[in-house]
Amino acid sequence: MAENVKKFKEEREKLNNLILSRDNLDIKRFFGLDSAVYRDGALDAKTKELLGLVASLVLRCDDCITYHIIQVKELKTTDNEFDEVMSIGLIVGGSITIPHIRRAYKLWEELKDKR
Amino acid sequence: MAENVKKFKEEREKLNNLILSRDNLDIKRFFGLDSAVYRDGALDAKTKELLGLVASLVLRCDDCITYHIIQVKELKTTDNEFDEVMSIGLIVGGSITIPHIRRAYKLWEELKDKR
Amino acid sequence: MAENVKKFKEEREKLNNLILSRDNLDIKRFFGLDSAVYRDGALDAKTKELLGLVASLVLRCDDCITYHIIQVKELKTTDNEFDEVMSIGLIVGGSITIPHIRRAYKLWEELKDKR
Amino acid sequence: MAENVKKFKEEREKLNNLILSRDNLDIKRFFGLDSAVYRDGALDAKTKELLGLVASLVLRCDDCITYHIIQVKELKTTDNEFDEVMSIGLIVGGSITIPHIRRAYKLWEELKDKR
Amino acid sequence: MAENVKKFKEEREKLNNLILSRDNLDIKRFFGLDSAVYRDGALDAKTKELLGLVASLVLRCDDCITYHIIQVKELKTTDNEFDEVMSIGLIVGGSITIPHIRRAYKLWEELKDKR
Amino acid sequence: MAENVKKFKEEREKLNNLILSRDNLDIKRFFGLDSAVYRDGALDAKTKELLGLVASLVLRCDDCITYHIIQVKELKTTDNEFDEVMSIGLIVGGSITIPHIRRAYKLWEELKDKR
Repeated sequence: MAENVKKFKEEREKLNNLILSRDNLDIKRFFGLDSAVYRDGALDAKTKELLGLVASLVLRCDDCITYHIIQVKELKTTDNEFDEVMSIGLIVGGSITIPHIRRAYKLWEELKDKR
Repeated sequence: MAENVKKFKEEREKLNNLILSRDNLDIKRFFGLDSAVYRDGALDAKTKELLGLVASLVLRCDDCITYHIIQVKELKTTDNEFDEVMSIGLIVGGSITIPHIRRAYKLWEELKDKR
Repeated sequence: MAENVKKFKEEREKLNNLILSRDNLDIKRFFGLDSAVYRDGALDAKTKELLGLVASLVLRCDDCITYHIIQVKELKTTDNEFDEVMSIGLIVGGSITIPHIRRAYKLWEELKDKR
Repeated sequence: MAENVKKFKEEREKLNNLILSRDNLDIKRFFGLDSAVYRDGALDAKTKELLGLVASLVLRCDDCITYHIIQVKELKTTDNEFDEVMSIGLIVGGSITIPHIRRAYKLWEELKDKR
Repeated sequence: MAENVKKFKEEREKLNNLILSRDNLDIKRFFGLDSAVYRDGALDAKTKELLGLVASLVLRCDDCITYHIIQVKELKTTDNEFDEVMSIGLIVGGSITIPHIRRAYKLWEELKDKR
Repeated sequence: MAENVKKFKEEREKLNNLILSRDNLDIKRFFGLDSAVYRDGALDAKTKELLGLVASLVLRCDDCITYHIIQVKELKTTDNEFDEVMSIGLIVGGSITIPHIRRAYKLWEELKDKR
């Protein structure tokens, strides 16, 4: 696993644990929902993660993009499929998504290199 | 076809024609790209329209949502698949997407009624 | 109650019922959470509705603004308190919030007239 | 003057007066600033209104777009200049700006027809 | 005071001074307004800073969130009050606010550790 | 040329090349359009880059702001013109643009120092 991906996952888990250690039931329930909506259903998990990825891209949330890229890679998304999701996000969201697309392709390459 | 869907399509086409009647090559090219990215490729057209739908939902663009709902209905999206796209958009985009989700379900019902 | 407020509430309830009639547990859970976070807690319900109002204003969601204005009015928010929430939203969100502030004040006046 | 432009201006002025009738100094000062930044300076008023137009377009604020289109028309913006501002807004903001661009061109035509 | 908070404040002040050293009256006036709206009024300063915090959270502006967290901490906001503001921001703004909520809780802990 | 500007340009070019090395015609076409809309036309290139700058500012895209600041500096934008674009962006987009305005002025100074 690429070093920065590992670091991203650790930091994410550490801070999630910090949040969940609080006595805040509403946030806990939201976190539960946030996992539930990406599970296999009428649409399979891969399609759902691609939906999460394009939504994150047009909203320009780097951490969310990173998370969903790691997921779609693990779910066997191909290069061409990845390209097409990036294209739709770019057309919908415009040139302000480009800095995020740059970082997305950088991560995509890193995930391949480390396989 | 539901009356408001017909009206939506006519108004949309009329104004698109107005824009394309201008001698504005850049906008024409963008419109071409905007069609191209949703065509069958590594991902099929239905998946791509679902990606366009969730992106439109989290960006809260009613006209875009209406357009993509009409497309995904024609591409045989089921009720459960539609529910799951709405759920992901809601979790990613939060309660400010709810007014758009209300209108989305209203349209979804209308498209069924008129079949 | 002002006629347009009554109509807003009825349309909102009708479409909420349409959504909740679906077999979509995730959306139902989100709707539950969306009610829960505004209940009296360490912060009282009025403060929480004012938080919901300013968040809706800077995100420029008219239906959300309308909903929270009705709530804060019922919770005895004064004119000066309302002014101050609008001012913060305006400074944080900039002049693009002004059309929403115009409609917010229009509704605020209507709610007073009908008392 | 086109009927809908006249109506837009009247509604806008009426609600601005409602807001300014309140004893809310901060909002008044903001409204003053909002006029000041578009006045002739190092950049001329027309360029500044075009800046306001493209900012309103990418933020997808219809009322703001309408206001700035009326201003740039009065300041002798040509068809080609208008096209180029729309193109930049479209490329920066993506396809979600298209519904606003449709309405912008519709208004642009109406302003010409009524001259 | 935590080291990163100190650094944040110094960098912020240095750049504010750079901006204010310019002969730009409009920006100066805006900065004045930006201070004015958070002062004690019909709503107390603490409530106003909480409004600023939730607005910053749903707009996903990390620097703004950091600033308002420092303010609300100094104004004696409790853990439970902080949790409730985060919950409202999360429900209104959706999962794309989570990376900001993670950093918000991290800062919140640091402000406690250093007391 | 300032060291960080040089680094920004190199990283940007490297990742653009990575993206363009992919067999993704839609993204390539978009990149072409993204260059085309800023070329001299009815509006000159400098005005167009200022439009791109204010659009990037209100959408709060730091990389986009950096890029357009470099462009407008090379196209002989004066300090006062720069101030006025920042002012319009600030008034339209509100206080959440301030962190980006701070970084914009920092870069603006650096570009002067290194001449």
